[in-house]
Parts: sequence; C-alpha cells; structure tokens
Amino acid sequence: MNTTTLLNALLSQFPKLLEQSKHALEQHSGDESWHPKQQPIAVIYPTSTQDVSDIAALCHQYNIAMSIFGAGTSVEGQSIPAPDSLCIDMSRMDTLLALHPDDQDCIVQAGLTRLELNAQIKDQGLFFPVDPGANASIGGMCATRASGTNAVKYGTMKHNVLGLTAVTADGTIIQTGGRARKSSSGYDLTSLLIGSEGTLAIITEITLRLQGIPENTAIATVQFQNLETLTLLVFQVLQLGIPIARVELLDKPAITAVNHYAKLQLQENHTLFFEFHGSLQYIQEQTTAVEKLSLELGGSHFSWATQQEDKNRLWKARHNVLYAAKATLPNSTVWTTDVCVPISALAQCILDTHEDIQNSGLLAPIVGHVGDGNFHLLIVIPNGDANAQQQASILNEKLIHRALAMGGTCTGEHGIGKGKKRWLIEEHGSSIGIMKTIKSSLDPKNLLGRGNIFSLE
Amino acid sequence: MNTTTLLNALLSQFPKLLEQSKHALEQHSGDESWHPKQQPIAVIYPTSTQDVSDIAALCHQYNIAMSIFGAGTSVEGQSIPAPDSLCIDMSRMDTLLALHPDDQDCIVQAGLTRLELNAQIKDQGLFFPVDPGANASIGGMCATRASGTNAVKYGTMKHNVLGLTAVTADGTIIQTGGRARKSSSGYDLTSLLIGSEGTLAIITEITLRLQGIPENTAIATVQFQNLETLTLLVFQVLQLGIPIARVELLDKPAITAVNHYAKLQLQENHTLFFEFHGSLQYIQEQTTAVEKLSLELGGSHFSWATQQEDKNRLWKARHNVLYAAKATLPNSTVWTTDVCVPISALAQCILDTHEDIQNSGLLAPIVGHVGDGNFHLLIVIPNGDANAQQQASILNEKLIHRALAMGGTCTGEHGIGKGKKRWLIEEHGSSIGIMKTIKSSLDPKNLLGRGNIFSLE
Repeated sequence: MNTTTLLNALLSQFPKLLEQSKHALEQHSGDESWHPKQQPIAVIYPTSTQDVSDIAALCHQYNIAMSIFGAGTSVEGQSIPAPDSLCIDMSRMDTLLALHPDDQDCIVQAGLTRLELNAQIKDQGLFFPVDPGANASIGGMCATRASGTNAVKYGTMKHNVLGLTAVTADGTIIQTGGRARKSSSGYDLTSLLIGSEGTLAIITEITLRLQGIPENTAIATVQFQNLETLTLLVFQVLQLGIPIARVELLDKPAITAVNHYAKLQLQENHTLFFEFHGSLQYIQEQTTAVEKLSLELGGSHFSWATQQEDKNRLWKARHNVLYAAKATLPNSTVWTTDVCVPISALAQCILDTHEDIQNSGLLAPIVGHVGDGNFHLLIVIPNGDANAQQQASILNEKLIHRALAMGGTCTGEHGIGKGKKRWLIEEHGSSIGIMKTIKSSLDPKNLLGRGNIFSLE
Repeated sequence: MNTTTLLNALLSQFPKLLEQSKHALEQHSGDESWHPKQQPIAVIYPTSTQDVSDIAALCHQYNIAMSIFGAGTSVEGQSIPAPDSLCIDMSRMDTLLALHPDDQDCIVQAGLTRLELNAQIKDQGLFFPVDPGANASIGGMCATRASGTNAVKYGTMKHNVLGLTAVTADGTIIQTGGRARKSSSGYDLTSLLIGSEGTLAIITEITLRLQGIPENTAIATVQFQNLETLTLLVFQVLQLGIPIARVELLDKPAITAVNHYAKLQLQENHTLFFEFHGSLQYIQEQTTAVEKLSLELGGSHFSWATQQEDKNRLWKARHNVLYAAKATLPNSTVWTTDVCVPISALAQCILDTHEDIQNSGLLAPIVGHVGDGNFHLLIVIPNGDANAQQQASILNEKLIHRALAMGGTCTGEHGIGKGKKRWLIEEHGSSIGIMKTIKSSLDPKNLLGRGNIFSLE
C-alpha cells in the first residue's frame, strides 16, 4: 500500500528518473559478492543532492527502506537491496563539480567513478590515490571505507576525504568537514559516515584530497618459492622505512590465474609487486635497497618494469585478479574475503591460512596489500556445489578467527555488509551498543542501508 | 545533596584518589586559555580504566557532571570544569602499557604526556610524531584532535590513533578500533571520539601508530621583509610536492618575543622554519630545491642548523612561543586563537589579518603550521584592560569570519571548547543537529564535558 503510494509520488515528481523494468530490477539485485540477490521495488536515478533529499523525504513519509547503489562493485553485499526497498542508483550523479589544483582538492558527485575522476584531473598533474582495484564510485568507496594498493603510502578513504554532503533518512541535507586540510571543529561526522555502508546517510557529494602525479614511478617484481621468505622481505622493507607506494602479494595460484586471464607470461610462483614514487634519484635509492634485500633472501626473477606499457599491463593484471579468479572455472562464483592484521603477525597469518586452503581442497588464490597487513582470499566455488560453499564458509571463519586472535580486524577494506555481521560483534564487543545507539538515533525508522552491518531487519 | 552523597561514596571507594583541598581545586580551575576559571567540586585521580568506569557509574547514579583534566594545556577552555562538576584528573594514568616495535605501535594510558612517551620509546628508534608544542597528555591530544608542527608530513591525531579504550557516561567500558593498520569493520568510533572534547566518553587508553626516527633531519630558516613573499614560498614548496616534515611561520613580532624569551639572536623579521627528514641524499635534494626557491623570491638569512644543539634550540624556541608571547608584557594574558584555510587562501588570510592586527593596536604575533594552511594569533592582553579584551574579541571574530568565507574552519587544532561555539554553528549549519543527536543519545544526562562544544549547560 505504502509502496504503491510512494511509487506514484515518485513517478509524479520524477517521471524520468524512476525505472521499474524487469531488467532494471535484475541489474540492481546484486553486486560482486557471493551473497544471494534481491530485487528492489524500483530503481531511481537522482541527479542532484536535492533530488536525493526529496526522494528520502518521500521514503521517510511512507516508511520505505532505501538501498544505495554506486557502481555495484561491493564484495560483501552492500549494494544488494533490502527486501521491499527502493534502490537509489547514484550513477547519474557523476559530475566533477569543482577542481582546485592549487589546493589539490576537488568536489565530486558520489556516482563518479575513480577511473573517470582520474581521467578528468590528469591534465592538471593530479590524481586520486585510493585504488581498490575495481572501478568503484567515489561514494561507494566512502561508504565502505575502501583502500587498496596505494594505501601504504597515501592512506585509505578515511585519510583522503575532507568533507561530505549527505542526506539523512528524513531528507535533511548536511555538510560535514570542509576544504581545510585539518580542523578541530566539532565531531568528525565525515569519518563517521565513511564506512557506514549507507546506514546513516546517503553520501551525495565528496570533497577529496588529491595528490600530484609522481615525477617518476618504478615497478619491481620478485618471486619466492615459499611465502614465509616473501613476507619476511615485506617486513624488512617496512622496518627500514623504505617509502614504498605499493607492495602487493599474488601467491602462485593468483599468478596462474592472471597469466591465463591477462595473457601474461609471469613465472608461476609467489610474487611481490613493488611500486616506488619520486625523483629518479630517490627511486634509485629505494629500489637498490629493495633489490639488495630481495636477493639476500633468495628472491628470484627480480625485474624492473620501466616501460609505461609494461607497468600498465602489470597493474591491470593485479586489478583484474578477481575476474581472473572467476575465469579459472566456468560456472563458478568467487567468495572474496579479507582481513588485516598487525604487520608482525602477517607471515604467520598467511602461512596458516595457506595450510587451511590446501586442506580444504578449494582453489583460493591469496592476494594482498601486504604493506598494511591486509590480504584477501578469492575462494572459487563451483555454482551449486553445496560442499564447496560449506568449505568456503569454514575457511572464511577460520581466517577471521585467526586475524582477530592476532589483534587484527575481520575486514581491512571490504566492509561488514551482509557477510560479516557475526564477526563485527566478536571484534567490537560492547562498542556495538554505541554503534547501534548512533544508528537508531540518526535513523530511528531503520530506513537506510537496511541489512548492512547490523542485523536490524 | 547529591554532591555530598557522591563525594562520600567516592571517598569510601577511593580514599587515596580523591582531593578536595583548596590548592587542588584551584590547580584544576583553568588551563592555558584566557577563559574564566571555574573550580570543580573535587578532584579525583583514577589509576586505571576500571577506576574511571567506577567513578563514572557513581557520577551517573548521582547526576554529577564530569570534567576531564589531562595536562591542562588546552587553549579553548576544554579543561576548565563545568560548574558543580567532578574533575577527573588523568595524570596518574601515565603508563606506557605496551610497545610493539615490530608493528610500530604502542598502547598508552591517557595521562601519559607526549614528551614522556617519546623519551620512553626513543631507544627503540621510534617516535610519536604529533607535536602541538605544549607537553600535552596523549588523551588530551585525542580529545581536541591536536596536531601541530609535524602534521604536514605525519598527519594529525586523527591519522595516528589506531584505537581507543573509553568509558561512557554511565561507566560502560568500550574498545574502538584495534591494532590493524586499517579496518572497514563498523562505524569509526575512534574518529568520532577524537575531537569530541570529553563530551562523548572519557578516553582512558590509546593505541598509537609510531614512526621510525628519521635517519637524518635538517633545519633551515629563511627570512622575508614581507609576509606575501613568504607565503608564496610556502605555496611553491607545496605545489612542487617537496616532502617537508615541518614548515613553520613566525612573524616579526613572534621572532622578537622568542629572541627575548629564549635568548636567541635571530634577525627580527618574518621567518620560516623548515625541517626535512630522510636519507642524506634525499634531504640534500629537498633542501637544495627549497634554498633555490627561497633565494629566487628574495629571502634573506637563509641558514642551516646542522648541529643537534642548534636544532633543539630552534624548535624549543618555536614551542615556547606562547610563553614567549606572555612574557612580552608583565601581568598579561594571551588569547590564542587559530584558523585553517585552503592553502590557496593562506596568503590573503594572513595579510588581511596582519592589517587587522595593526589597526587594532594590539600586540598579536602570528605563528603558523603553514604547510597545512593553519595559523595562530597570540593576542597579548594586559590584565584588566577591558578595551584590549574587546579589541581582541573583534580581531578573533574577524579572523574566523575571514577563514570561513575562504572555505576554511574556525579552528585547525585548538578545538571549540568554551570559546568557539558560535562559529561551530556558523561553520557546520544543519550538521550541528546530527552532532547534538549523537551527544544526547550517548550521554542523555549531559554529564560529560559539559560546557564544551555545545551550549547545553
């Protein structure tokens, strides 16, 4: 009843923005996770913060839940609509609203994707460093507190967002933060919304801190027969404070997968990808140090990519590893999960997990942003194979328990979404009560992002 | 009535921790700000999180407000107790609880001061980079979202705290964050508490990210006849991405003050202090670039401090500038205020403010962490001079309006405290409603940090 009334009201106010076709509903029913699909009641495509405010006010009036859809690249089901909810698709809010090269900041609409943003600011010698691999929307990256390959040098979304415009459950438009590099003015609502997975407010515009494109970049790869020595190299590089821009692990099965998918001829072994940014002299200093350490530890196939084309191919391979894992088996789904542990625990955590994978009989490449202590499993599950699904679930649970026992977190960058609610509680204990209090005080009707983070449906 | 009952209960439970002497009350009635003093009903010195929890539970039971006292170095009255409140002095909670050199993190009690922490971890080759000048407590630095001279390279408290233990208004102990370098697990309560100025919870333990002591440091000073050229140099250095660790402005009156106070013989002119961290080669590269730019712009007295003793003396002078300003006039109070603006607006903001100062007839040295767009006025007010106080108030208001109009913030690092509530509202508009909702949902009796940030007394 309320649904019909809402849809009529939306149709009347936004005749060109509402879609109810089977195709649109299907297209918005899932994301890149393994979680079951769920169709929304309709999809609406706002073009401005004011649109979002008007839509939220109507949903609030008629008690209809709102699910936010960015680029659909979330991996814990964050984009999957709650039952009987309206899907608000942010993709038409994809404008770079302002660019301030002198201040190295910009203001974007939430639906702009990171690759499109980078394409638009490149001419100014600027780039946005947070890089989760997928071509996610900036709003979605805020919502899940995304990070990725560059975080070891440039930080996560938490460190690169200066301010937000957002719409609360009742349609109120709020501004958080601003354009100053730092502020002690009131509660840090920006950080509260970052990582709130659509449950506290709908992020519509974002003020981002940008970086100057590095003068030079260099990429090195090195391979190891065993993961223990490989993680020891990472540890030594970090201990020495060598200012790497990225350090990525792809284990042997991951290399096999990307070789096949991206038509590369990498030696199939556990591999580290390093990237260095800076002046030629500075890079030279860093790379010499890393090469020396690598060789001392018995690393093999140490090599430099100096041509831009080679660098692009390597990073494209790294970025496509999820799709590469999917492609290893026809008719399969990839359950991707991640944890993050203190650096000193990383080696043990990876080794024990590697053993678990071998015992499980599953194919589960390990990839990781190891400079932060963060790594992922890409568990390949043949569709319809209940036993493999069960094994994957056990593997995931073991991984998370191990990470928590080591002082780590149940997710370094994927978020809680639909998949990690149990471990949110295990990780945070009594502070869950504070999170729930905040949630219910800001969204008493539980209309926003319902089903994500908390079991409040 | 409640007060007596509470004090009796506290005396019975914590006979050795409660103080009610005139001296103790007086000692806890003020901070380093110009704001009027206010004595608490008593002072209690907890030694553990459990003590704090027990104390808070009793205050909650008897409806007595709690004011938190760290090192008393706040500059917007944050440490000044609310009327009829119990002062919880954290100074006996000053233990380094755990140090993890491999992970470059540590866990401290909130009352530990930053200098004491740095003294204790130095042997491990580590340091905690956030440096607001004063020897503040780590808990107080969290509460005000402090930053300071190193923020341009290492970030503010927001970027250097991994997790917290805190006690809510009713005595509940919560843990936020953890030891992983990054996490997407639930709401970022750590960031919410950082900068909440004692209004949401009592921070008792902090997990800090540490840094390796740089291989080498170099300090350069350069002087300018006019502030415009000086700020242009800062702007150019930042635009070129030269990775400075600190860049501090002391204008001519500030130099005069520190010369006198610290017995230095610096040429009395507008001065920039630069610091560089890294390998000798890397530092050489940076310093050569900065020297070249400085000379091109007509900077004078460009000089290097290479001896550790000289470096220490220079930074000590910078750190003591507040006390130096106070010492310029016997029987005076210094009203220190700060703003932060986008870098592109910094020159204009400083120049216009400089003109305001000259028109006001006040002595008000300008010092700034200019690499972040952040600067301070140290307005010297003869005690009892109502006209000077009035002029200072006008100067402060003009400064803040200017910063806000330029897209900046009413405080870069001092916090709102008792002094900037009006501008919190001007700066944040409708999001103040969200802040107040959070405050009242987490502390419905308004017992914590009463009088700070909001006018809810």
